[in-house]
Amino acid sequence: MIKIAVDAMGGDHAPKEQVLGAMKAVKEIDDIEITLYGDETSINQYLKPHDRIKIVQSEGTIDMGEKDPIRAIRSNRKSSMALALSSVRKEENDAIVSSGATQALIAGAHILVGRMKQMKRTAIAPVLPTASHKAFILLDSGGNLEIKPEYMVQQAHFASLYAKEILGVEQPKVGLINIGSEEGKGRDLDNEAYRLFKENPHIDFVGNVEPKEVLDPPCDVLISDGFTANIVMKTIEGTAKGMGKMLKQELKRGILGKVGLLLSAKNLQNFKRRMSPSEIGGAMIYGLKGVVIKAQGASKSEGFYNAIRQAAHVVRQDVIGKVSAVLESKSDES
Amino acid sequence: MIKIAVDAMGGDHAPKEQVLGAMKAVKEIDDIEITLYGDETSINQYLKPHDRIKIVQSEGTIDMGEKDPIRAIRSNRKSSMALALSSVRKEENDAIVSSGATQALIAGAHILVGRMKQMKRTAIAPVLPTASHKAFILLDSGGNLEIKPEYMVQQAHFASLYAKEILGVEQPKVGLINIGSEEGKGRDLDNEAYRLFKENPHIDFVGNVEPKEVLDPPCDVLISDGFTANIVMKTIEGTAKGMGKMLKQELKRGILGKVGLLLSAKNLQNFKRRMSPSEIGGAMIYGLKGVVIKAQGASKSEGFYNAIRQAAHVVRQDVIGKVSAVLESKSDES
Repeated sequence: MIKIAVDAMGGDHAPKEQVLGAMKAVKEIDDIEITLYGDETSINQYLKPHDRIKIVQSEGTIDMGEKDPIRAIRSNRKSSMALALSSVRKEENDAIVSSGATQALIAGAHILVGRMKQMKRTAIAPVLPTASHKAFILLDSGGNLEIKPEYMVQQAHFASLYAKEILGVEQPKVGLINIGSEEGKGRDLDNEAYRLFKENPHIDFVGNVEPKEVLDPPCDVLISDGFTANIVMKTIEGTAKGMGKMLKQELKRGILGKVGLLLSAKNLQNFKRRMSPSEIGGAMIYGLKGVVIKAQGASKSEGFYNAIRQAAHVVRQDVIGKVSAVLESKSDES
Repeated sequence: MIKIAVDAMGGDHAPKEQVLGAMKAVKEIDDIEITLYGDETSINQYLKPHDRIKIVQSEGTIDMGEKDPIRAIRSNRKSSMALALSSVRKEENDAIVSSGATQALIAGAHILVGRMKQMKRTAIAPVLPTASHKAFILLDSGGNLEIKPEYMVQQAHFASLYAKEILGVEQPKVGLINIGSEEGKGRDLDNEAYRLFKENPHIDFVGNVEPKEVLDPPCDVLISDGFTANIVMKTIEGTAKGMGKMLKQELKRGILGKVGLLLSAKNLQNFKRRMSPSEIGGAMIYGLKGVVIKAQGASKSEGFYNAIRQAAHVVRQDVIGKVSAVLESKSDES
């Protein structure tokens, strides 16, 4: 049995969507057991008892807008997030899924789960949709604002292995986010990273990728420093939101338009779902001793279910064990 | 009469769309005269003679993929771009519009038009659509990869004045692109820029703006360093392109969907036009002694016409003169 800790109190729709997502997960996936961390009374409003779901009572919560995430974790050791993270360290659970505040989750994971010794920096890596029904990993989406190029290489190793084991890509390709496609474009950091990626025999490097290809990239992993990748992620989100708004404004114009909109309703729903984060699941935090998955704060039950399924899959494929082995052998080489 | 130089040979559809755009411009705008720089024979294939359009023959062209833009300009002094730029320096024209290679245009403008002494760095500033039928200025979209925060303040002055005089915004607001909205987010550069903007009594600063609001920003000017702003611009482009593709894939599914698509055709065209750069015009290069407007490489006649109209408007409002006066008085104060 794969044991998954669910932080039931984090996110915009807690605990309802977390509980519904967990219920769907035990129904659909046979080899998992879930522990919900949170307020038992609130959880029981939504939970139908199930022999593979149990509850652990928590106290206090981590505020989504918390300015000092480390202090938030340290002073809320009995919060649902802290208890769930600690349970992974104690090996009571194999993975944790939370849609709580990102910075608090990263800080908490450092303190309560611990960093794997082979990776110098953690990274947060969402999986995003593309126009060609594939998906790509974007990293580092906010872990490290400034980073050494050699740590980016470690992160690319992790992402390549994740793409292979979890996304089923035979030979994952890595691209460097940059303002031009030719070698030599960008800042010193980008040029140094380019050189390291190009030299590395274990990374299938496609070179610089401009974000004007961001929803149809020629690779499975897009990498930059944490500031730039976070800007890319938020710009995708903002553009999708803005375009959705404009599309709605335009489509309802005129009588013919209104009828057209009605007939297209189902197709527009599918379009919306393809752009929605819930289809893809959560973002894994790379570089920890345990599996920590961040689900979107706005996740509904479907998104939360996908994040749980993803967590189970990462445990089942022993992604962390395999990454450790790869990084270990690399450091032997050098 | 406002005199405008048009580089007829730059861009994906030259000279046809440039010539058609110029013809529309003299028809719609009474107080302009246009000089087309390019190959007379090719231009005459599309040009209907007009007493306010003349042609100056050029020799050689600037390659769009040119790796060394400065050399490209220096060794092609008789190219359409170089001749058109020089005509502004010589005061034969008041402004130039080109859809040639961006880096060559920036380099050429430095060499052949010259930098205004009050501004330490040039910046390229496209005007982008928003979901609320307003527009915003994004800068610096690729001029300076790394920049000092005090130069960002000069650029924000320029953009504020442009927003007022050209976009008609009563009191333009400026936002700093960042990964979080709270003060203290981001890199050292962002924090230093934040402090300078906040202190400056002449800039109406709204604070940090996350790109998840990029098509509906709470301000008229969004600013960052040249690397970051270029990444934002290209991510908007890539997301719009990718979403357009997904939308097309989804909307044509099923019989009902196909009928719906047919009925929505006109509305979808309007939507596409709102997202298209041709609706807004070109990007002005700030910080030069003359008016230099970069139209998109893919511009069709409508986009080129808009860029010419914009150039005329910038001359008419004496934007450069007003910016010089403002920056002059600022430096007196300090």
